[in-house]
Amino acid sequence: MGQDTTSSDPSTGKLDFMFSGMTGGDGENSYAQNSTWQARMVAMTLPKLFEDIKSMSLTDRDQVFRIADLGCSSGPNTIRNVEAVIEQVRARYKEAEVDTSSGPEIQVYFQDLPNTDFNTLIKFLFSQPRSDEEKVQKYMSAAVPGSFYDRLFPKSTINIALSTFALHWLSEIPAAVRDKASPAYNGGNTQIKRSSLATKEAFAEQAKRDLDRFLAARAHEIGPGGLLFMIFLIRPDEQSGTTLVEDCEDDVWDSLVREGTVPVQLRDDFNNPFYARNMDDVNTLLESYGSVFEVQRRDISTIFLKDLLRVYLDPREAARAKTNAHRGATFKAMEAYIGESATRIYFQKFEEALGEIYAREKVIFERDGSESPELLSFTLLILRRK
Amino acid sequence: MGQDTTSSDPSTGKLDFMFSGMTGGDGENSYAQNSTWQARMVAMTLPKLFEDIKSMSLTDRDQVFRIADLGCSSGPNTIRNVEAVIEQVRARYKEAEVDTSSGPEIQVYFQDLPNTDFNTLIKFLFSQPRSDEEKVQKYMSAAVPGSFYDRLFPKSTINIALSTFALHWLSEIPAAVRDKASPAYNGGNTQIKRSSLATKEAFAEQAKRDLDRFLAARAHEIGPGGLLFMIFLIRPDEQSGTTLVEDCEDDVWDSLVREGTVPVQLRDDFNNPFYARNMDDVNTLLESYGSVFEVQRRDISTIFLKDLLRVYLDPREAARAKTNAHRGATFKAMEAYIGESATRIYFQKFEEALGEIYAREKVIFERDGSESPELLSFTLLILRRK
Repeated sequence: MGQDTTSSDPSTGKLDFMFSGMTGGDGENSYAQNSTWQARMVAMTLPKLFEDIKSMSLTDRDQVFRIADLGCSSGPNTIRNVEAVIEQVRARYKEAEVDTSSGPEIQVYFQDLPNTDFNTLIKFLFSQPRSDEEKVQKYMSAAVPGSFYDRLFPKSTINIALSTFALHWLSEIPAAVRDKASPAYNGGNTQIKRSSLATKEAFAEQAKRDLDRFLAARAHEIGPGGLLFMIFLIRPDEQSGTTLVEDCEDDVWDSLVREGTVPVQLRDDFNNPFYARNMDDVNTLLESYGSVFEVQRRDISTIFLKDLLRVYLDPREAARAKTNAHRGATFKAMEAYIGESATRIYFQKFEEALGEIYAREKVIFERDGSESPELLSFTLLILRRK
Repeated sequence: MGQDTTSSDPSTGKLDFMFSGMTGGDGENSYAQNSTWQARMVAMTLPKLFEDIKSMSLTDRDQVFRIADLGCSSGPNTIRNVEAVIEQVRARYKEAEVDTSSGPEIQVYFQDLPNTDFNTLIKFLFSQPRSDEEKVQKYMSAAVPGSFYDRLFPKSTINIALSTFALHWLSEIPAAVRDKASPAYNGGNTQIKRSSLATKEAFAEQAKRDLDRFLAARAHEIGPGGLLFMIFLIRPDEQSGTTLVEDCEDDVWDSLVREGTVPVQLRDDFNNPFYARNMDDVNTLLESYGSVFEVQRRDISTIFLKDLLRVYLDPREAARAKTNAHRGATFKAMEAYIGESATRIYFQKFEEALGEIYAREKVIFERDGSESPELLSFTLLILRRK
């Protein structure tokens, strides 16, 4: 792999440390009930952005400081993340302050696709307990509908942009993948685990084009000295990454087709617009933006089944948590496509299948003392706009 | 009255000219089905803003040009209005253009209260026919939740702010109006037509405070040379303005209480946060902002029943249209308060009562050749930030 590793993470890339001190089980106050994998991982990695905020050059106090969360979803995680960033920015201005003037006005853009439930996000924004009112009033907020693969903001107006667990969603399914005459046609699969090399390459190319568009748009929008913080799923090499889940997905689709719940044509036409990029592709692209963005930080982390089972204890509980995260990301799109009933059956079967795999693997690695399977890998990137 | 009249409106303030050439009736393509009073009035008055855009000083092309619609509701009127303004701004830059460089980047803020259905607004924004795609891409948009009586945007970042038919909604019901021990207590009424002088004064004071807060916030946000375009309902003198509708409202509440549909206490506790300001109060406030805002335009217009009946022909149809507008503005708030069933009954009775009044008045002014009753008055104000 070509990536630098500038963080203090153990060289194994394991995130074992993440799960110490959490409440296990599924009780009211447990991690399982109150957070998600993704939210937790963002919370654990944001301090690396805070370090870079400490050394970023400050704008004039009478200028506006703008923060954008790209692919923010409906909250409340985005609000928590953004407010944590604001706290750091405020602290930085306070520290640098020689007179008694206050810091700059802060404006926050919460961005996601136009079909996002922004009403719910706004409800979260304004539902904070009264005691936090002052905190809320410390920044002005706006919801920005659109695709982050397009231009969203005026030139050089963003100081800090975040994008957490969103960039592995592609802008579209590559045309060849849906074309029966193409060697990249992906009939029989809904994602790429079992697909032909041509299909995999079509997805990889789409992912490259998309990340290129993303970086080009941000290069325009982020002002000099501004920071771009990204977390997204990757496959460290061609084969690994999210394998257990991907195995499951198409097995479940197969069974839905076999039992007649979903017509075969509907399954053949369905493709999940998801791609965990090869890290080499990411690095090549970052190099091509070398004159625009300086890479301040580039980490890779892998979550293993053992990590998950340290939190959830029971493989079935772990499968339920993973299924809930999967459901949150894709239920709406699937429901629109195969209907509510079939979608419910899908997720029920998915949870069962995943639970079986987790239970089976647990027996193996506990018995053999072997490495537990990888669940997923992600990269944390912090770029500085030159 | 103290207001200047700088427009070319007939001195009567009538808007007779508004209704020429419209399609009558309630057919599929009629004005009645496809527009609202308010939307039509805004469309008729926006050209006055366009005139002022023609003479406004241009910002540098590399600066962002920002437009805000304050109290935008869920669309699609706000989109139409804002895009009409953008067209004028673009034309102005094109005219002034000596080289081939394009105009500035334009960003639009659609602002309304946090409980607004922004999802629907965003759906309208992105549902334009493909052929208009280019047009849509010509500006960047953001939804801004909050109260326009508070600060919403960073300092000096707005070039043009609009607020159409929103400023007659107060930020809150004055405390005294809800206090049984106060002479301003408004039990027995839901608005102020039949109320004591103390109640009316409490509303007038609240309306003054609110407009003061609105102007103070905009003074901060609108940059030098920027324009503030406002339309809101007024009462040209203490007694006139929206009288027929106001008569109706509390009569209907009375009948709901009499027949037991709504408990008397619930009615007594309900107050519509609406106030058509006295124009003298508005003028006094504008004077106090004389060092900040220059009044470029200050018109007053009155709509008479005769105008309405020229569009809808039948008094019952006119009552239905007026009821629909009333329903659009207040159904949600009333439903939350007295329930869906009682709210439906309210609007049914309202439409009947209003239809009777319109029919009765029609007979009178047609028989006597007398002036038809005033339905409402509004002011159009265009201020320029010094």
